[in-house]
Amino acid sequence: MSDAIAVVGSVAFDTIETPAGRADHELGGAATHFAVAASFFAPVHLIGVAGDGFPSAERDYLGSRGIDLGGLETRAGRTMTWHGRYHEDMNVRDTMALDLGVFADFRPTLSAAARRVPYLFLGVIDPAIQRDVLQQVAGAKLVGLDTMNYYIENAKTALQGLLSHVDLFVLNDEEARMLSGESNVVRAARRILALGCRRVLVKRGEYGAILFSADSVFAVPAYPLEQVFDPTGAGDTFAGGMMGYLASTGDTGEANLRRAIVYGSVLASFVVEDFGGRRMRTLDRDTIERRYRQFVALTEF
Amino acid sequence: MSDAIAVVGSVAFDTIETPAGRADHELGGAATHFAVAASFFAPVHLIGVAGDGFPSAERDYLGSRGIDLGGLETRAGRTMTWHGRYHEDMNVRDTMALDLGVFADFRPTLSAAARRVPYLFLGVIDPAIQRDVLQQVAGAKLVGLDTMNYYIENAKTALQGLLSHVDLFVLNDEEARMLSGESNVVRAARRILALGCRRVLVKRGEYGAILFSADSVFAVPAYPLEQVFDPTGAGDTFAGGMMGYLASTGDTGEANLRRAIVYGSVLASFVVEDFGGRRMRTLDRDTIERRYRQFVALTEF
Repeated sequence: MSDAIAVVGSVAFDTIETPAGRADHELGGAATHFAVAASFFAPVHLIGVAGDGFPSAERDYLGSRGIDLGGLETRAGRTMTWHGRYHEDMNVRDTMALDLGVFADFRPTLSAAARRVPYLFLGVIDPAIQRDVLQQVAGAKLVGLDTMNYYIENAKTALQGLLSHVDLFVLNDEEARMLSGESNVVRAARRILALGCRRVLVKRGEYGAILFSADSVFAVPAYPLEQVFDPTGAGDTFAGGMMGYLASTGDTGEANLRRAIVYGSVLASFVVEDFGGRRMRTLDRDTIERRYRQFVALTEF
Repeated sequence: MSDAIAVVGSVAFDTIETPAGRADHELGGAATHFAVAASFFAPVHLIGVAGDGFPSAERDYLGSRGIDLGGLETRAGRTMTWHGRYHEDMNVRDTMALDLGVFADFRPTLSAAARRVPYLFLGVIDPAIQRDVLQQVAGAKLVGLDTMNYYIENAKTALQGLLSHVDLFVLNDEEARMLSGESNVVRAARRILALGCRRVLVKRGEYGAILFSADSVFAVPAYPLEQVFDPTGAGDTFAGGMMGYLASTGDTGEANLRRAIVYGSVLASFVVEDFGGRRMRTLDRDTIERRYRQFVALTEF
């Protein structure tokens, strides 16, 4: 029996333009991508907010993946929408439009079940709200945290104040540089560890990821893909796959965390194969395990 | 008893400016860096040219590393000099001055011993000269090739004409994109394989390297360093460590090639710790083996 996970973050509809084409009104948002990925491994409580027009078909889809939507509050107003356009170099994107809708003044209140989860992931949201959720979940076995450049610039002190409660801080290389003021990834990670979190996982996009703790480093390449169709949600899917695998095993030791990072990479390698979260709708556990074995073959020496 | 290697390429003196400082008149050049790295594993014939003022102390140093200098021609004139300045982001550098000196019209003639080597590395030089050397070495067990953006732009046909004779084509990601016209590294490598070489190794600097053959892919991160002091010679040292390890084992199979790539990464991780090739002068095999084991610990899951 897998341990349960709670994730807090955005639920949104995305309009996405990539060099490969365009998709409108795709179900997205950090918490959604995370929850779907994690649901291949463990039961997930999604803590978020949707507008009152949120389609029941999407609710049914998430429910069909075993995601508990008791914490998906419905409020009068619009679900968050985002419109992004990727450059030819898909590491660069422009936000064409962003409407936070009901997400703007979301203040989560967790159910009794969600408050008892052993695995908590504080997805991208204001650090004050991340703290609020953290305080509602007493005694989690592992707390993960994500953030974005906006909060590093505008809520740095609040963010740093969280870190001593965080077991695994997940951020990308640009965010690590911005938060630490160090351009070298090793020095950046050492500085962030000094702020009090137990481990830092730096995501490097197509180059993989690198995990730092006080006494070890783990570096892993990304699964090489002939085509990245749409990178939207890759980071959240990575985190969801990783936390899901951890929760499914109940083992938060270094060796298992490394395997979990590879599962995260595997899930991320699928989500970029189609717009938004479409690929995840047909994915199954056997296909995941097959790519995990290919990942082993890719990296062993 | 290790198999012997021959490498052809530049011997030079480098003036190097990095954010960490400046060094003048450091022994460098692609063939030098390659030969020194390979010499930790196997006997090396260095095929190159130096001016008549080339210091005997440098000759003695290379000789002390077991490098056969019978193919290092001395000609009236100046040894090649290069002056480079790295940006704060050390992936970018400007060439401040370049004087090819006697290298400008170098036409190598190999000794009888060098013509019989089982391992041949065609370092960066005009593809016409690479072909000339290739024709002098009949029956090599493994032929490696390096090039640079200048020859991809100005001697593309000659370069492509070599590839069907090449077992291992080593180039960086920018060069792979330029040669193939593909921005995606997997598609770029597939196109280059289609030109006839058996394997393509794409170097990705601080992100490691990725090896492609018709039926397999191997991806490996770089050894994470807190400080890169001077990247000069890292690529040549990588290639030299890799070819040296291959020659020391006599095994050119996929599994051993993967280990050889890790040895190449290990050697490159040392050379960047000081200006030019300084760090290599005090390096020993035990220190290499220790970092190889750290590399295993860094990547295993």
